[in-house]
Amino acid sequence: MRVLGIDPGLRNLGWGVIDVIGARITHVANGICHSDGSEGNLAHRLCSLHSQLTEVVRSYAPDAAAVEHTFVNKDAVATLKLGQARGIALLVPAQAGIDVGEYAPNAVKKTVVGVGHAAKVQVDHMVRLHLPGVVIAGADAADALAIAICHAHHLQSAGRLQAALKRAAG
Amino acid sequence: MRVLGIDPGLRNLGWGVIDVIGARITHVANGICHSDGSEGNLAHRLCSLHSQLTEVVRSYAPDAAAVEHTFVNKDAVATLKLGQARGIALLVPAQAGIDVGEYAPNAVKKTVVGVGHAAKVQVDHMVRLHLPGVVIAGADAADALAIAICHAHHLQSAGRLQAALKRAAG
Repeated sequence: MRVLGIDPGLRNLGWGVIDVIGARITHVANGICHSDGSEGNLAHRLCSLHSQLTEVVRSYAPDAAAVEHTFVNKDAVATLKLGQARGIALLVPAQAGIDVGEYAPNAVKKTVVGVGHAAKVQVDHMVRLHLPGVVIAGADAADALAIAICHAHHLQSAGRLQAALKRAAG
Repeated sequence: MRVLGIDPGLRNLGWGVIDVIGARITHVANGICHSDGSEGNLAHRLCSLHSQLTEVVRSYAPDAAAVEHTFVNKDAVATLKLGQARGIALLVPAQAGIDVGEYAPNAVKKTVVGVGHAAKVQVDHMVRLHLPGVVIAGADAADALAIAICHAHHLQSAGRLQAALKRAAG
């Protein structure tokens, strides 16, 4: 199973793709979709993010996707901007018929590091431990890989639970 | 010139299309794109809004579009939701190669009613005065028509200004 993780952002939208075979996780690709003011107004920037992320989905054909449930901060203008980019992050995999999971940052940290209040640098460190030798495009791509790892773990747990329930019923 | 106005929202996304010939504004169509919880998770809802709005753009082929610059309220969760829907509202016309204007609610009110602090009911009333006899699909569609009227006025003013500058230079 191939999993795409997305860390939404208007300027930098991180993405990471991993393959999951049994308990083994391997890295496929990671990167950052950029959009800045030089690409025109907000509508053009969102359009550019949409194209870039659609190309990622087309290139790597993931079976599942997950997007970070954005941290709602105190700054309403920043929240609105993030919301707009997050709309694109959710839309693109859904348009390809891929189910999209959502995880709160604490859930991602808890899965990848073991504690919900882990620092960003710990997440980055654990991602590199999970995926040794991988060149990571930046902090947003590391976060996206963490989200993909988190989603893979949850899908596996759900699969194991369903298998156990089937055994119990049969 | 045909202008599309959009009032973004996750549950109800209003849209209105008008034709502008000289100083005359005529109604073309208006409606509301709906997405509620029954359509699945957030990603599916955004995908549904994208399809519905893309169909509107395809059907009416506007030359210009404008989206309300969302009122940033105190509730961060609501702001984030609105941001996600607004991302779709900005994306769809941009994907069709249409320039997208953005107007603050006060600018829309100032253009349509004459004062920036007008009540919603006044905007609705003035839209009906501008477009007599038109059946309006709901409050969100009336807001969308107000945004389209606002954009039409601004495009005309800009056009008149450019023409005047040309005359002054020539």
